[in-house]
Amino acid sequence: MLPEKTIERLSQYRRLLLANKQKGKENIFSHEIAVQLHLTSVQVRRDIMLIGYSGTQRKGYNIDLLIEKISSILDDEKGLNSIIIGMGNLGKAISTYFYGKRNKIDIVAAFDIDIKKTGRLISGVWCYHTSDLETIIKEKQISLAILALAPEAAQDITDRIIFAGVKGILNFTSVPLNVLPNVYLENYDMVTSIEKVAYFVKENHLQNR
Amino acid sequence: MLPEKTIERLSQYRRLLLANKQKGKENIFSHEIAVQLHLTSVQVRRDIMLIGYSGTQRKGYNIDLLIEKISSILDDEKGLNSIIIGMGNLGKAISTYFYGKRNKIDIVAAFDIDIKKTGRLISGVWCYHTSDLETIIKEKQISLAILALAPEAAQDITDRIIFAGVKGILNFTSVPLNVLPNVYLENYDMVTSIEKVAYFVKENHLQNR
Repeated sequence: MLPEKTIERLSQYRRLLLANKQKGKENIFSHEIAVQLHLTSVQVRRDIMLIGYSGTQRKGYNIDLLIEKISSILDDEKGLNSIIIGMGNLGKAISTYFYGKRNKIDIVAAFDIDIKKTGRLISGVWCYHTSDLETIIKEKQISLAILALAPEAAQDITDRIIFAGVKGILNFTSVPLNVLPNVYLENYDMVTSIEKVAYFVKENHLQNR
Repeated sequence: MLPEKTIERLSQYRRLLLANKQKGKENIFSHEIAVQLHLTSVQVRRDIMLIGYSGTQRKGYNIDLLIEKISSILDDEKGLNSIIIGMGNLGKAISTYFYGKRNKIDIVAAFDIDIKKTGRLISGVWCYHTSDLETIIKEKQISLAILALAPEAAQDITDRIIFAGVKGILNFTSVPLNVLPNVYLENYDMVTSIEKVAYFVKENHLQNR
């Protein structure tokens, strides 16, 4: 298993490679990747060497082959079924964002407690009532859940989906969740991100006075 | 200036302390903080020592005083004016999320190119047309911008807001942005987060076979 930070960078490399491929580029150098992602070329070369790929000094990496190599590491070849829980503005934004973008990670259902939202398509995904969670998770073999619901309900829903078989959670609520050790939890924390930017803006201000 | 990771944790400590305060708690031990945030108590104690605060062996940290101490580090006492650019589902979700939550980081304006959205309040924030960016940034002394707009427009808008005086950017688009070295850029990358969870779900599957 590769370290978390390496996985993050591989995901970023692939997105960058796809963007460059779209522009008609066929080869890319490590320093080009590095500049675009604010990394060092040494870091980029080390990561790509780690996954057993190498370029040539003259032409760099072949973009198609490198995309293929990274995909063989990141993706589950059978695909992975995921759900979004909570279809407020955030849930809708996430589903629009992912819709049709990642063919190996399929968002196959959405859930909400509000019956005005259930029983229809929202941003391309069918929205069920939260009471159907267990049934759908088992029926559609869901292994990944994205939480975009109200903080108050987050832990309770987490317990239910883990019991029903979910193995990975992307948590967009600001609640620290308790999960079983065999469940992978990633917290996506907006408040911390904005506070971090604010801190460095403030410190730079002070330094430049 | 403190390291990025320390700032992230301080922000998380404060949120946790505020939640515990709300429940009527007055004191907290480092191991209680650690468990709730999936850290070690050593890490928690080291961070809090670093900012010059300490608890007692018997009672732990005083919650009110620790919140005050962390705030004196993270917050700009004069407050910080920020804007959101792009008021689609994501922009609305962000503004709802922050509205009234952080009294030292004020979201004072929103922007969109769609005239159906401009000239009115959306999720509590007044929405201007993107053509007014420079004027409002100068008028309201904006130093922080949150980007939730279409990827195609991201770099162009970034150049404009930096030229107008913005010093910190929280980037929700999946585009790697070029910024001047005196501008702090934080990328908030949904695709990478979900790909990371998917990878670890897949690897655990393979291991448990």
